Amino acid sequence: METTERFIDYVKKMQAYSEAIGLMYWDLRTGAPRKGVNQRSEVIGTLSSEVFAMQTSDELAAMLEEIEKNLETLDPITKETYKKVKKDYEMSKKIPANEYKAFVILTSKSESAWEEAKEKSDFKMFYPYLKEIVETTKRFVSYWGVKDNNPYNTLLDEYEPGMTTEILDEVFGELRNRIVPLAKKIADSPNQPTTDFLFKTFPKDKQKQFSLDILKQLGYDFEAGRLDETVHPFATGLNRGDVRITTKYDENDFRSAIFGTIHECGHALYEQNISEELEGLPLAGGTSMGIHESQSLFYENFVGRNEKFWEHNYARLQAYAPEQFGHIPVEDFLAAINESKSSLIRIEADELTYPLHIMIRYEIEKGLFNGDMKVEDLPQIWNDKYEEYLGVRPSNDAEGILQDVHWAGGAFGYFPSYALGYMYASQLKAAMLKDLPNFDELCATGDLEPVKTWLTEKVHRHGSMKKPLEILTEATGEGLNATYLAEYLEEKYTRLYKLNS
Amino acid sequence: METTERFIDYVKKMQAYSEAIGLMYWDLRTGAPRKGVNQRSEVIGTLSSEVFAMQTSDELAAMLEEIEKNLETLDPITKETYKKVKKDYEMSKKIPANEYKAFVILTSKSESAWEEAKEKSDFKMFYPYLKEIVETTKRFVSYWGVKDNNPYNTLLDEYEPGMTTEILDEVFGELRNRIVPLAKKIADSPNQPTTDFLFKTFPKDKQKQFSLDILKQLGYDFEAGRLDETVHPFATGLNRGDVRITTKYDENDFRSAIFGTIHECGHALYEQNISEELEGLPLAGGTSMGIHESQSLFYENFVGRNEKFWEHNYARLQAYAPEQFGHIPVEDFLAAINESKSSLIRIEADELTYPLHIMIRYEIEKGLFNGDMKVEDLPQIWNDKYEEYLGVRPSNDAEGILQDVHWAGGAFGYFPSYALGYMYASQLKAAMLKDLPNFDELCATGDLEPVKTWLTEKVHRHGSMKKPLEILTEATGEGLNATYLAEYLEEKYTRLYKLNS
Repeated sequence: METTERFIDYVKKMQAYSEAIGLMYWDLRTGAPRKGVNQRSEVIGTLSSEVFAMQTSDELAAMLEEIEKNLETLDPITKETYKKVKKDYEMSKKIPANEYKAFVILTSKSESAWEEAKEKSDFKMFYPYLKEIVETTKRFVSYWGVKDNNPYNTLLDEYEPGMTTEILDEVFGELRNRIVPLAKKIADSPNQPTTDFLFKTFPKDKQKQFSLDILKQLGYDFEAGRLDETVHPFATGLNRGDVRITTKYDENDFRSAIFGTIHECGHALYEQNISEELEGLPLAGGTSMGIHESQSLFYENFVGRNEKFWEHNYARLQAYAPEQFGHIPVEDFLAAINESKSSLIRIEADELTYPLHIMIRYEIEKGLFNGDMKVEDLPQIWNDKYEEYLGVRPSNDAEGILQDVHWAGGAFGYFPSYALGYMYASQLKAAMLKDLPNFDELCATGDLEPVKTWLTEKVHRHGSMKKPLEILTEATGEGLNATYLAEYLEEKYTRLYKLNS
Repeated sequence: METTERFIDYVKKMQAYSEAIGLMYWDLRTGAPRKGVNQRSEVIGTLSSEVFAMQTSDELAAMLEEIEKNLETLDPITKETYKKVKKDYEMSKKIPANEYKAFVILTSKSESAWEEAKEKSDFKMFYPYLKEIVETTKRFVSYWGVKDNNPYNTLLDEYEPGMTTEILDEVFGELRNRIVPLAKKIADSPNQPTTDFLFKTFPKDKQKQFSLDILKQLGYDFEAGRLDETVHPFATGLNRGDVRITTKYDENDFRSAIFGTIHECGHALYEQNISEELEGLPLAGGTSMGIHESQSLFYENFVGRNEKFWEHNYARLQAYAPEQFGHIPVEDFLAAINESKSSLIRIEADELTYPLHIMIRYEIEKGLFNGDMKVEDLPQIWNDKYEEYLGVRPSNDAEGILQDVHWAGGAFGYFPSYALGYMYASQLKAAMLKDLPNFDELCATGDLEPVKTWLTEKVHRHGSMKKPLEILTEATGEGLNATYLAEYLEEKYTRLYKLNS
């Protein structure tokens, strides 16, 4: 057999193992019986080790070397597959096996330590773990190679290929300069919405039916997916014909399920609409965390919080929960679901202040890896930054430095994708308006097919064939530009809070 | 590392892959989205090939050879693991890889051909496939080695280690001699039960709630399993902490879900109560098809169709379906669910006539493999035997020779396990009565824990550590004996149909 054929078979096998692992994770999070978890974890461990062994094998190395010789003669899909597999090979191979294993054990212990530390709101308990994780990660960066003289760039590149601190400093800077004063004006505004009616009892099965209605409207393909319940919602693309959404129903706050489902649907539409020719290959997934998040945030914010969308759907929501919403005018509903208020917890933040939470984490990560900050100083730094950017100060570590699990798992460079996705989404929305100037009208009539088609054409179908900034540039005609998001937020919140009046 | 340690790691890895495959099958049959099935099948194929490769590898052969040298020094679990893996190795290895592959393709095509032939009720369409499957199987038997001069014994041994035509001829002969006249008497009896009330509408969610109540009563551990819906119900033991049951709700015939669930629960209790020390090994499953079926039939017939069981549960059933059962006395209900009537279709047969369906298949399989029968004559032979044993004659192939999928998949030697399981169950019941003379009382009070404990002690916990006949002999003090089943049926049906009066 030719080397390229062998190579494709080999990566398809790795991909098949990953799909099996993906299903096991989905199952663990949607209803696997408690007593089977230990043995199931062994099975996941066995398959994961096999994937890692395949990813770093001499057999793969020999194939990659052989293929490199004829790189220019390859068809585009094989070539991109080669590039992706080669990158993963090098990332994995450069870490000595024993150090990698030690790191896996360290992060596993660290996550438990974090959990306990958060419960007791005591950073000191978590400190030694975090310190070691940062040190190990620094060492890994030195193995991988420092990009553009900045170790943090190496980490950013892992989640968002091509992203650098230079780009982020600029866009985050602009964004902060425009969001902070806006948030301040909102806080000082007399026009605060009433929100108490959001928290009435909305039975789970009604929420579910409404969620299913909305998913259908957004174009989610139920023959290529399903909706289940879980504690921490997620979407998972096992293959393009099996992209599952999970959600959580809070009977006293319907927003969790509805906006969560719309968010996960954005992720799912991406994976359901990847080109068929990529099936079974490692390219059959989103190209980066940021682009993925751009799809979920596009739907959550630009569709799900759009006034026209509710023009179409509010009567239906009222029918599912007549006592809760029957007497509430749609304007009051829109004001309530778009309330903006500075808060301490990222995952509860609103559309406007959310990017500020991300910037704080970005600045801290950058500071840790370029040597400007020390782990022991983080609680203080964190609290000061919250006060500076959001005007609120955590009173303890649990609602401050300890709130997120990411660092306990060694995920540095991940946070910026959340804000990047938001900026990408805003840019895509602006570009979409040129082709679909009737966007609001489409939302108002519930005909969202053209929106999905546009995103599929520009983003979804490419899978990982293109890099994030390539997708963005081809779709919008320019590189990352924070202005679109800033303008969107200024327009929307000035109007909602009547800041000009 | 020592060879035995390497060996155990190796078989645990095979077992881990099988568990992942098991979960994927469960998922495919309980709600996997249609469009993902093709790619999921590829994943299952990839993992299955890997298991087969591991099962027949030179690496395994070398380990087995090494271990054999010190067989007597091994602990019992490692020794039995060795024996099982060695047997599987030899079974797989003796078939040339290309012939095995051809057989897999053949049976896959054959199952499609069977489906179409059954739809059109035309045996001729299926005939060439069946002929080739029988010929291939005969060749495989010659590779495996003929047991006791009878090729069919080799096939029996695959599903029921130690089982032979000599044993089966004897027990099936006795059983037939006692069931056939009994069925005849019942058919001629004037005391036929009324059954029309069984077929009223019983809403699915009520059936489900009742099923869950019953599962709880039988001792099914919901922390080590779950109940889902499917088209063709099954139980699957992924590991002892994750043993799932599936069922099918027919709103016009509640018996399908209730007795089906009790049946699958019997299978599930077996797998949930296998000794913990076998976890992760190939011994952590039922020892044979027959013993497995003994557990499902024990619960379905000796518990689920027991009069005392309904003394405890009938009021509850009435509460779930008051319009259907509120005015039906429990005696009428018991007479209806225990109705016996000769019929053409095995899976719809009652407790009494079911073994006759099996014997017909057994005699045909035996005839095919010892050369007494030809594939082309099967429809005629089938119909004649149905007339002789059951007094009914199929009017077409669909309700005759084509009704079961088993032969299309190449499963010869499997059918006898169904009747064997029934005989095992009867013997176990008789032995259990010595330790639990209050069995009926336990059913009447819903306290079925002692029943499960007894079966766990005698059967469940051993997993595949003991051979079927070993389990039977140790639990009951004797080998296979058809008298227990015959006596049970005679007593029960003479009473129900008042044949002595």
